[in-house]
Amino acid sequence: MSEIVVIGSVAIDSVESPYGKQEECFGGSASYFSYAARFFAPVKLIAVVGEDFPPHFREVLEEQKIDLSGLEVRKGKTFRWKGKYEGDMNVADTLDTQLNVFETFCPTITQNSCDYLFLANIDPRLQYDVLQKIKVKNLVASDTMNHWIANKHDELMQVLKHVDLLVINDMEARLLTGEQNLVKALKRINSFGPSQIVIKKGAHGAIAFYGGDIFTLPAYPVDDVYDPTGAGDSFAGGMIGYLAEKDAMNVTNFRTAIAYGTVVASFTVERFSLERLREIKRETIEERLNTFRKITQF
Amino acid sequence: MSEIVVIGSVAIDSVESPYGKQEECFGGSASYFSYAARFFAPVKLIAVVGEDFPPHFREVLEEQKIDLSGLEVRKGKTFRWKGKYEGDMNVADTLDTQLNVFETFCPTITQNSCDYLFLANIDPRLQYDVLQKIKVKNLVASDTMNHWIANKHDELMQVLKHVDLLVINDMEARLLTGEQNLVKALKRINSFGPSQIVIKKGAHGAIAFYGGDIFTLPAYPVDDVYDPTGAGDSFAGGMIGYLAEKDAMNVTNFRTAIAYGTVVASFTVERFSLERLREIKRETIEERLNTFRKITQF
Repeated sequence: MSEIVVIGSVAIDSVESPYGKQEECFGGSASYFSYAARFFAPVKLIAVVGEDFPPHFREVLEEQKIDLSGLEVRKGKTFRWKGKYEGDMNVADTLDTQLNVFETFCPTITQNSCDYLFLANIDPRLQYDVLQKIKVKNLVASDTMNHWIANKHDELMQVLKHVDLLVINDMEARLLTGEQNLVKALKRINSFGPSQIVIKKGAHGAIAFYGGDIFTLPAYPVDDVYDPTGAGDSFAGGMIGYLAEKDAMNVTNFRTAIAYGTVVASFTVERFSLERLREIKRETIEERLNTFRKITQF
Repeated sequence: MSEIVVIGSVAIDSVESPYGKQEECFGGSASYFSYAARFFAPVKLIAVVGEDFPPHFREVLEEQKIDLSGLEVRKGKTFRWKGKYEGDMNVADTLDTQLNVFETFCPTITQNSCDYLFLANIDPRLQYDVLQKIKVKNLVASDTMNHWIANKHDELMQVLKHVDLLVINDMEARLLTGEQNLVKALKRINSFGPSQIVIKKGAHGAIAFYGGDIFTLPAYPVDDVYDPTGAGDSFAGGMIGYLAEKDAMNVTNFRTAIAYGTVVASFTVERFSLERLREIKRETIEERLNTFRKITQF
């Protein structure tokens, strides 16, 4: 079992969905990722929050035994995001984004090396900077978003040359490659650098590429989707967490990791914020993984 | 092995996609269904065409040894549909529909009974009428569309009471049930009558219900989607064809049938019209089914 270092956002979210409204709840890509990954392997979180960051949010991360020595507290307010989900709830309607202390975030890297690194959705310039500072022994994984694909394209392409595993959603994959067809998009992304790619399709599952082969899974069917926020980040957390636990890269582990990511994400959406993830245990994940295997086997 | 009777449309389509334009090519729900089902079991097609129906389209059905004794030729023109696919190509943009002889179609049923019946997308009043005239020994399956759900709701609900297996797409399932969530939609449809339900999600696979349990599969990943027309009908054909071949209803056959439906549909979209289906053999289907199993197993 190896340690994962994750660099990304820790945020205060306000979310509205057909299931209700949550004001100022706990969010952020690095929060979801680390909480999910920590079911499988040790996690160190590198992020920044403001002076207003509530102590009970910190306790949520501490209860999961996440290493918070890299969580910087700076003068100012914590990153805030406000979104709304409607219809099939596959895409969030962003109502407001306040970067606050996240705007000038420059990750402080105190260690020379790590085993697994996850560069969550931050400015590719910062992602590249981190890669210069830290030697990654086993796996460099990353995420990105439409904004960086459109506005920091060259910087992102520079990062991708050093990324082993890219985990992005279908919209981002299409924007990044100019390919509508996801099989073609996977092959295209492979030519940019990553040898392992997962395209997340929200409620429609995932399609992935490893060693020249395609792999695909549906989503785990959930009756009550309260809040899809963080589903993608906890997918990545479950997936990379499992890879770090196994600590051996092969096609079987890659595929099983995607199934774990799918299952962890299916818990995330069942309540607002990190609520549902806080209720479950590793056994709960194992049970659902077995069910998932049963309901997809023919 | 049992015979399947299918009642639906035989049409002349004009289709435009990013891969080109096809004028006056062979189409129709019953054409795709019967061609696909015939890889597995004997099929009798009941439909109507006009005097302009090209002999080489009839030969396509004959080459697959489909029983055409129920294919009526009537004064007038054959049903015509014109559509266009763009973007992710999951939904067709209908440019023109000319019902022609299909407008007054009233299926002539000469037999008292059949083993398997597929009521393709036609007026639910006609579907009900067929059910009154023919005794179905093994399985009544049906499809429908938004138009009937919206405008012939009561007639459709009356039909559903007598349907064992409903095969519809996600948009239709949502409209029929008022549920955005497909797990809930499946349970709702089950309460309308059908004990077996498959919701097709196009490029996103399928989610199904049988004996109280959910089953879900991704689509088979295809690089070049030329023309999604008939994918849903050939899915139903592959699925019900396999069920008729096995001739025993249980959860294993139900799930494997969905996998066959998925694979057959994946061939359909690889060329325009029935072109790709005409190139393949039962062995080609078996090979892809094996690949499908491999690329979805974890």
